[in-house]
Amino acid sequence: MNKQYEVGIIGGGIIGQSIAYHLAKEGVSVLVLESHKIGTGATSAAAGMLGANSELEKNDAFYQFAKESQRLYHSLQYELSERSQINIGLVDKGMYKIAMNDDEADSLKEAASYYKSVEWHEKEMVLEHESTLSTSIKGALYIKEDGHVSPLHVCAAFSKSASLLGATILENSPVHAIKKTSKNGYTLSTPRADFSVNKVVIANGVWSGHFFKQLGVNAGMKPVKGECLSVKSSEISLEKTIFYDHCYIVPKGDGRIVIGATMVEDDWSTAPTIGGIQSLIEKITPIMPSIASSQLHETWSGLRPQSHDGKPYIGQHPNGEHIYFATGHYRNGILLAPKTGEMVRDLILGRQQNEDYINTFSIVRPQLQAMR
Amino acid sequence: MNKQYEVGIIGGGIIGQSIAYHLAKEGVSVLVLESHKIGTGATSAAAGMLGANSELEKNDAFYQFAKESQRLYHSLQYELSERSQINIGLVDKGMYKIAMNDDEADSLKEAASYYKSVEWHEKEMVLEHESTLSTSIKGALYIKEDGHVSPLHVCAAFSKSASLLGATILENSPVHAIKKTSKNGYTLSTPRADFSVNKVVIANGVWSGHFFKQLGVNAGMKPVKGECLSVKSSEISLEKTIFYDHCYIVPKGDGRIVIGATMVEDDWSTAPTIGGIQSLIEKITPIMPSIASSQLHETWSGLRPQSHDGKPYIGQHPNGEHIYFATGHYRNGILLAPKTGEMVRDLILGRQQNEDYINTFSIVRPQLQAMR
Amino acid sequence: MNKQYEVGIIGGGIIGQSIAYHLAKEGVSVLVLESHKIGTGATSAAAGMLGANSELEKNDAFYQFAKESQRLYHSLQYELSERSQINIGLVDKGMYKIAMNDDEADSLKEAASYYKSVEWHEKEMVLEHESTLSTSIKGALYIKEDGHVSPLHVCAAFSKSASLLGATILENSPVHAIKKTSKNGYTLSTPRADFSVNKVVIANGVWSGHFFKQLGVNAGMKPVKGECLSVKSSEISLEKTIFYDHCYIVPKGDGRIVIGATMVEDDWSTAPTIGGIQSLIEKITPIMPSIASSQLHETWSGLRPQSHDGKPYIGQHPNGEHIYFATGHYRNGILLAPKTGEMVRDLILGRQQNEDYINTFSIVRPQLQAMR
Amino acid sequence: MNKQYEVGIIGGGIIGQSIAYHLAKEGVSVLVLESHKIGTGATSAAAGMLGANSELEKNDAFYQFAKESQRLYHSLQYELSERSQINIGLVDKGMYKIAMNDDEADSLKEAASYYKSVEWHEKEMVLEHESTLSTSIKGALYIKEDGHVSPLHVCAAFSKSASLLGATILENSPVHAIKKTSKNGYTLSTPRADFSVNKVVIANGVWSGHFFKQLGVNAGMKPVKGECLSVKSSEISLEKTIFYDHCYIVPKGDGRIVIGATMVEDDWSTAPTIGGIQSLIEKITPIMPSIASSQLHETWSGLRPQSHDGKPYIGQHPNGEHIYFATGHYRNGILLAPKTGEMVRDLILGRQQNEDYINTFSIVRPQLQAMR
Repeated sequence: MNKQYEVGIIGGGIIGQSIAYHLAKEGVSVLVLESHKIGTGATSAAAGMLGANSELEKNDAFYQFAKESQRLYHSLQYELSERSQINIGLVDKGMYKIAMNDDEADSLKEAASYYKSVEWHEKEMVLEHESTLSTSIKGALYIKEDGHVSPLHVCAAFSKSASLLGATILENSPVHAIKKTSKNGYTLSTPRADFSVNKVVIANGVWSGHFFKQLGVNAGMKPVKGECLSVKSSEISLEKTIFYDHCYIVPKGDGRIVIGATMVEDDWSTAPTIGGIQSLIEKITPIMPSIASSQLHETWSGLRPQSHDGKPYIGQHPNGEHIYFATGHYRNGILLAPKTGEMVRDLILGRQQNEDYINTFSIVRPQLQAMR
Repeated sequence: MNKQYEVGIIGGGIIGQSIAYHLAKEGVSVLVLESHKIGTGATSAAAGMLGANSELEKNDAFYQFAKESQRLYHSLQYELSERSQINIGLVDKGMYKIAMNDDEADSLKEAASYYKSVEWHEKEMVLEHESTLSTSIKGALYIKEDGHVSPLHVCAAFSKSASLLGATILENSPVHAIKKTSKNGYTLSTPRADFSVNKVVIANGVWSGHFFKQLGVNAGMKPVKGECLSVKSSEISLEKTIFYDHCYIVPKGDGRIVIGATMVEDDWSTAPTIGGIQSLIEKITPIMPSIASSQLHETWSGLRPQSHDGKPYIGQHPNGEHIYFATGHYRNGILLAPKTGEMVRDLILGRQQNEDYINTFSIVRPQLQAMR
Repeated sequence: MNKQYEVGIIGGGIIGQSIAYHLAKEGVSVLVLESHKIGTGATSAAAGMLGANSELEKNDAFYQFAKESQRLYHSLQYELSERSQINIGLVDKGMYKIAMNDDEADSLKEAASYYKSVEWHEKEMVLEHESTLSTSIKGALYIKEDGHVSPLHVCAAFSKSASLLGATILENSPVHAIKKTSKNGYTLSTPRADFSVNKVVIANGVWSGHFFKQLGVNAGMKPVKGECLSVKSSEISLEKTIFYDHCYIVPKGDGRIVIGATMVEDDWSTAPTIGGIQSLIEKITPIMPSIASSQLHETWSGLRPQSHDGKPYIGQHPNGEHIYFATGHYRNGILLAPKTGEMVRDLILGRQQNEDYINTFSIVRPQLQAMR
Repeated sequence: MNKQYEVGIIGGGIIGQSIAYHLAKEGVSVLVLESHKIGTGATSAAAGMLGANSELEKNDAFYQFAKESQRLYHSLQYELSERSQINIGLVDKGMYKIAMNDDEADSLKEAASYYKSVEWHEKEMVLEHESTLSTSIKGALYIKEDGHVSPLHVCAAFSKSASLLGATILENSPVHAIKKTSKNGYTLSTPRADFSVNKVVIANGVWSGHFFKQLGVNAGMKPVKGECLSVKSSEISLEKTIFYDHCYIVPKGDGRIVIGATMVEDDWSTAPTIGGIQSLIEKITPIMPSIASSQLHETWSGLRPQSHDGKPYIGQHPNGEHIYFATGHYRNGILLAPKTGEMVRDLILGRQQNEDYINTFSIVRPQLQAMR
């Protein structure tokens, strides 16, 4: 394979595929190298919550970025379906962030007074909307904008659309080394072949870490294993996503209810454990007692890539190399995929950028050093 | 269980669940008895094609019934999603019925001149729209109204909506006998218990046959086994459903392409055979050569219930018993489920009926005798 | 199908298949009618423990019957492998019945003094043999004769061997009625056809109940749902089966560790619930703490058929009809299958029988009435 | 992880696990680094045929090596079961290599006259033993010593036994670089950490290729994709493995019949294609017509690592580095795993070696150059 590609993307998860799609749409020749199979990493572990408001605390650049990305899904659902015939499963019925005690209620009420996009619902109102919740809740923050998608279908839709636009997407192609070949070129070494590209995007999640060393970038990356389970029930009527203490209950459009996720730091294994599943059940049951009689459908897990400050690395290599980072999205990879794709596309095409985003997601941002 | 139900429905497939839903919406107390698990019979074997025009030949009452049912899906998709949160996967991008030789082309052109809802597309135009089709096709009939749904999701959405409306739906409950208890009552005997109902609906597909004998109705019912397979491919871009010689290629919204189905008469086994899968591959490959390099995803099969004239039995027991039939839908169960649900509901509630439908689907219609 | 069969067996689980095999070996023409698929009922729910000593308390006829059946597996493993090429997965490394407190220890020590086939092991000795057990155990009863098999492989081996010996085995063939046709004949009615047989064996587990009524036999039969899970672990070294409070941990020859089972009475559903799985995890973890870090592999469940006194019904219809019962094996169907097959064969062939067994398992045994 | 390991093995398939086991048994501290999951590469693609005689043509050192390895399985089955409780599924009922025309018959008869371990069976005798074979066969070579095992269970048994003997086995740990740290040490770089080892074994099949370049070894390695399918049938009675034109039909002890495998060169994808499955069915059906009515159970595929001369690379790095190769086993990895494990163990421990083996499997053997 002696073809020269304009951009080589390392990683075929939802981030890499979003970038591939956004570049292919601009006529850029793209190569995606996935070490195993498309969307089998962190992408497959996610429940697909678009939790811009529920997951993020402060009204900062990260929050603005997340909100923009969240909004992009509303146009993407049609655009991607037209191109790939794949339905990304966007459900847009909002979320309840539950309070189980007075302190939690107070902080959620405070949030409600601060953000106009959310409102506090008293216990009675919550139970009226979601009757399967426990009567021992104190109330909930209603976040109307936080919906969810089907991560694997978003990933597949980006991937197939990019492929039909001319992108080359190769599975079973782990990149072992990035070698500079000349002022404007790099070689990506894989067991099957070496590939020549002008620019490189590193988007392989927790596996990105070893390139940091290779490339002389001093940034942290550690895995946080997330275990999930799904259930089926003909009795449970649930419309909104339920969120409590980093755990969510998501009613999917295929009839499954997805429950997740554990957070196990520095665990590189990717199989759900008995202990992990037990902890999920114990955490969820008090919030929704009827879950106990639902049918266990399946369990799975994956590794989310976490930076020191929990924000992704999106941007160019500090010394001006044509190497770009789009990784470290932690629990927010699905939410952030659309905007990450746009931002990396614009960086590569030299388009105008939002300075706040560049500083916030810089792989050498000062805040990171502080946290070491 | 001494509760008295107004209506007892035998069979928890898409037909039984549609009836349960339409009755529960009217406040009727409904019991559904499924011998095994919801939607594991003919429902699970179907690709979900809504082939009113492609499957049916003449412009008769059956065709009108099918068209009405097809249209009902457009409102049902929202209604069922609101109630059950389940997306029925309606895709409405039309179908190409392929001609591979001049005779086939002529008869399709004739159909195009006869039905205003379809039009003939010359080979070049077809290949422009669907470039993965073989260049050896002669052309195709474009049927814009024939889309498809996800059968299991339609069935689950009907079932969950009915359940949330108060219907009782029991799995693992085979009905062995229907016994008349009094002028206005019947007992449905199952291993778990006997159930008392005022009216009975027989909707268990090919398994309905043995009730015919029990109830003194002389109607035929035989299984036609259908084997299917699904593939995945990032190269194949397919928008419309492709139909040729009783076989279809259906691009589903989840990224799978479903190919089916064989027709094996009087075979009661429900596992796909090597020979059946081979015959599907051999029939489809000439129409879409690139299918050969696609990934085999899964295979499955099921038994479609066929009457002597290929039309369903929908209607009341001839001697006025409060026993209703809704079975024998053969290849068209998914297409006909919504309208069948409405018709049986109206029969039970004594509402005005379309006489043509009553005569066409009567279990003692004269046409049947002729075909013995 | 006008063929006349000598014996018609209702139920294609491990009991029905054992009877079919033992009869086919004698040249008897056999028909097996399975309502769904071979071995998908209680057979599929079992872990395959051969717990003659661990499950049964007293040294009575039932115990003797179980011991004989247990021993039969040692010859069957070769015999069935020769005929069907299927390995039944017999593992014969004994079992530890654990004591977690002094009372349990005392009663197990008493058992050890009573049965010569078992011996008491002090805590230290137990932990020496099975180091993954909790150090908080008090000791264990070592039952060297209680091994285990793979239930589905035993069932498949019986079935395939019977089939190769000429037995006719039909799936998807629920029997709705047994009708007497003449002094020496019966008709078995199924949706696919009516079958003529000279003798009938009722062996469809919890589903047998409705025939009792039909046949005028006043015997009880209720389901006890059992939920199981399996795990995988490269750290856990377990040789013996562990048994505690009706729960077992079984190290299978395929590398899985099977944990089961819950006992949910009068529940006819066949899907594992979140609550059931949680209860298993909570019961097992204190006995083997390292299970918490093992991988959850799969979960499943099934319905065990329970009589009033927990013993099976094996024998002829009380009024001399050529109808035989082989059902109600509750938790012991796998253990008892071989001897049940021999006993029913001998009853049908009019061979000498053990009177104790006939009285103990009679469907009209007096003990049953007492327990109403 | 600053632990220093004596030996670091790259690759957790059956070859790497056999080496880990044989070294751990000698008390050597071993680290196995698997890029994805244990046994998911070529190991999972194999049917487990031990085809020393059927696969290999000449009576050379390679053949002798294969025969020794084949024999080792007879002791390993007990040894590994004792340690890991896992049954490797050894079936030892021989193989029929079929002749479909006179030329094939002649060459098989010649082989029969040459090897005393095999004998020619005339058509009638073959059909007497294996009645499901086509009557159009000409006869077959009976190879009594060629049995089969369950590859995944052999791999799991090696892995668990090694683990219980103290070996460290890490999944999700791709090695990107091997760096020399000092005269007697290497660093294995993975995304999760760098690992220090004294000696390195490269055993990751087709993925080994990129280390050849890194290490300055000029040896070829290309993938040959193999697609398989398995069927179930209660009618097919098959005792021996059937072999014809690189395809085999293997009756497994779990009741499945495994059919494989295609040989697609330079294809790095790992999903079975429609075309590949079709070609298997077309090749097998003439030999065993009844396969057409058997049930398709599952399909899978994997990449076999092929050297220029089809023989594995087993031996030390030519320039005396403490780097060892054990890869390129092509279609014979399962057969050769036991002896490969012994040979690499002996090389590492500096034990006496068979010179023929060293020369035959040397990564710089002259024969290889000739074939470029």
